Amino acid sequence: MARINEHFLKLQAGYLFPEIGRRVARFAAEHPQAKIIRLGIGDVTEPLPSAVIEAMHRALDEMGRRETFRGYGPEQGYDFLRNAIAENDYKTHGVDISPDEIFISDGSKCDTGNILDVFGAENVVAVTDPVYPVYVDTNVMAGRTGQADGQGRFAGLVYLPVTAENDFVPALPSTRVDLIYLCYPNNPTGTVATRETLARWVDYAKRNHAIILFDAAYEAYISTPGIPHSIFEIPGAREVAIEFRSFSKTAGFTGTRCAFTVVPTTVTGASADGAKVDVYRLWNRRHSTKFNGVSYIVQRGAEAVYSPRGKEQVRALIDFYLTNARLLRDGLGSLDLQVFGGVDAPYVWLKTPGNTPSWDFFDRLLSQAHLVGTPGSGFGPSGEGYFRLSAFNSRENVEEALRRIRTLLG
Amino acid sequence: MARINEHFLKLQAGYLFPEIGRRVARFAAEHPQAKIIRLGIGDVTEPLPSAVIEAMHRALDEMGRRETFRGYGPEQGYDFLRNAIAENDYKTHGVDISPDEIFISDGSKCDTGNILDVFGAENVVAVTDPVYPVYVDTNVMAGRTGQADGQGRFAGLVYLPVTAENDFVPALPSTRVDLIYLCYPNNPTGTVATRETLARWVDYAKRNHAIILFDAAYEAYISTPGIPHSIFEIPGAREVAIEFRSFSKTAGFTGTRCAFTVVPTTVTGASADGAKVDVYRLWNRRHSTKFNGVSYIVQRGAEAVYSPRGKEQVRALIDFYLTNARLLRDGLGSLDLQVFGGVDAPYVWLKTPGNTPSWDFFDRLLSQAHLVGTPGSGFGPSGEGYFRLSAFNSRENVEEALRRIRTLLG
Repeated sequence: MARINEHFLKLQAGYLFPEIGRRVARFAAEHPQAKIIRLGIGDVTEPLPSAVIEAMHRALDEMGRRETFRGYGPEQGYDFLRNAIAENDYKTHGVDISPDEIFISDGSKCDTGNILDVFGAENVVAVTDPVYPVYVDTNVMAGRTGQADGQGRFAGLVYLPVTAENDFVPALPSTRVDLIYLCYPNNPTGTVATRETLARWVDYAKRNHAIILFDAAYEAYISTPGIPHSIFEIPGAREVAIEFRSFSKTAGFTGTRCAFTVVPTTVTGASADGAKVDVYRLWNRRHSTKFNGVSYIVQRGAEAVYSPRGKEQVRALIDFYLTNARLLRDGLGSLDLQVFGGVDAPYVWLKTPGNTPSWDFFDRLLSQAHLVGTPGSGFGPSGEGYFRLSAFNSRENVEEALRRIRTLLG
Repeated sequence: MARINEHFLKLQAGYLFPEIGRRVARFAAEHPQAKIIRLGIGDVTEPLPSAVIEAMHRALDEMGRRETFRGYGPEQGYDFLRNAIAENDYKTHGVDISPDEIFISDGSKCDTGNILDVFGAENVVAVTDPVYPVYVDTNVMAGRTGQADGQGRFAGLVYLPVTAENDFVPALPSTRVDLIYLCYPNNPTGTVATRETLARWVDYAKRNHAIILFDAAYEAYISTPGIPHSIFEIPGAREVAIEFRSFSKTAGFTGTRCAFTVVPTTVTGASADGAKVDVYRLWNRRHSTKFNGVSYIVQRGAEAVYSPRGKEQVRALIDFYLTNARLLRDGLGSLDLQVFGGVDAPYVWLKTPGNTPSWDFFDRLLSQAHLVGTPGSGFGPSGEGYFRLSAFNSRENVEEALRRIRTLLG
């Protein structure tokens, strides 16, 4: 008799964004004339840079001619892209990452889930609270948790609250943990980690032989000088950290699909007999066995992100979204709302007025201002009373959203 | 202390194809003037159909304009593609599969591995021997096996030999199994399953509440009338089977990446308390949580496969490779070699002359004829003494390969 994976039954009814989707669809059906502005899901709105489009047209033409056609590529990605990443994202920033430590994939969401395959079920996992739900759900699926409590916290996971009270800096865990997810610039709070904060985590990981899973999907949004763009800027991180990056939020690849994971050859985990095993070797085996590489056409598009024109165009995209974020931040701040993030990240994280529960504020904003945001509590119990607005939209929509919020709350 | 997934250590040193790659690279380095012809890995060689290329150029242009730009798509795939598949691959063949039972993905290799996430560790898994190595390795990684024996058979897996002796028809298992991988047309043997054979498996699965994981990646190569193209042509299969299909070997998408998995809403697995749970619901949750959809551009390319011109062009591609297969089959047969497959599949499976061990024959063919094939034993111990040749190549190379084999063995 085929048995299901029992752990799936522990998962909460819906992933956060489908639930938002359902509420918005219901409202839209009941109010077909409402001009809904979506600042909810972190999805880009601006077209792909022309440098990327042109590179992909060329790659596509290659695929149409026998002499230049490409079949299976290397599962780990083409050297042209791995080299461009190593050079531009690491070497020029003085960070020691070699091209063969870079694994090209079709998304950071996949990678942050798939990386768990190479780790044992007995690891204790730490996440911040609030947190990107995928980290939690994929660990639930893999059997690293017990049941959820009434607040949605899963037994067995170690939650590290990040709130205004601790300045959004998670405290080191008081019990031993083995795998630690850190996401900076942070989704959902839009806050960043200083060099000192990250150094404290690297030190913790080294002392406890723990591994940091560092999600740097929003790295390109860092504007404040001195804030690390990569965990590998911290001395010693090459021994204890894996980094996830993506072209989704930089070059607008959410619908095009390309990302990468950096697994230094120097990261080790322990086997049952206490021997040190290279995580690199296991991930390489996993990646070659359960993945078949990213579309050649898409990899050529990603490569073009590093061309002089591509860099300029991506910079302009980021600046555009960051200006949106600043407008949101300033506009909400002028209404005497407590606002966080939005400086080094495309997300603004606000305290709901009068400490309204997050989902109530969601419903109010949707029904009275026809605006969609993301309830903070959807990211974890410590997100209750907070709300996320995304800067991914047109200038016009951001300005109109602010006008509506001003009318509602001003 | 971070612990690795211990099960990875049970895996054999290398995945088959990297080992072939290493031997070929070494030979090529030592004999730079040798004109090596590769009939090893099952990778297509002909360019993408022009209908596909044109559709992708159009989609790419949409991605370059704000009004038509697409960000995140549905994780399960766009309706335009799911509808086209349901209509063309199923409905017109009288098979009852609805579009929302079709999950678009970036490859069947990924899907056949990932599907295991939704099943418990306690399931007993049956595979044919020889077999596509990914089925075995992903189960090893997931902890469903013990150690491998000297022949490479993993404890806990049920191996069903398919050899000339049983006409390549696997016997029903003599002990209970819960998950059964079937691949037809078969990789590596190139043989097919009759309606009666498949009906016997569906009946077995129903009686034992087992689930069949049916890999139909080579379905388009079936030329013999009456051979089922889908497991769902068998009455009752909707309750016990999941089907994997791919655009890789039909439209030449090995480097472009698109595939799909059909999970009928009627397939159930048991939970610990004996309740029936819809596998559909679990897979949908897995797919939404650990995957972010296939590139929009690629999905438009896959949709074009179903256009009138696309169909015609894909048919021509398949016919081209099938003619290669026939030439190989006839050419080898005329040398008094025992040859199987190659009629309804792009693979020819031959008995090595004088029952030479597969890797010895590989080395002989490489060193003396500069030809690369795949050793049968690489697919499992029952493949020992067999050898796979792939029909994926130019006509010229296939004819030249035959000339060299004739010189060597004739």
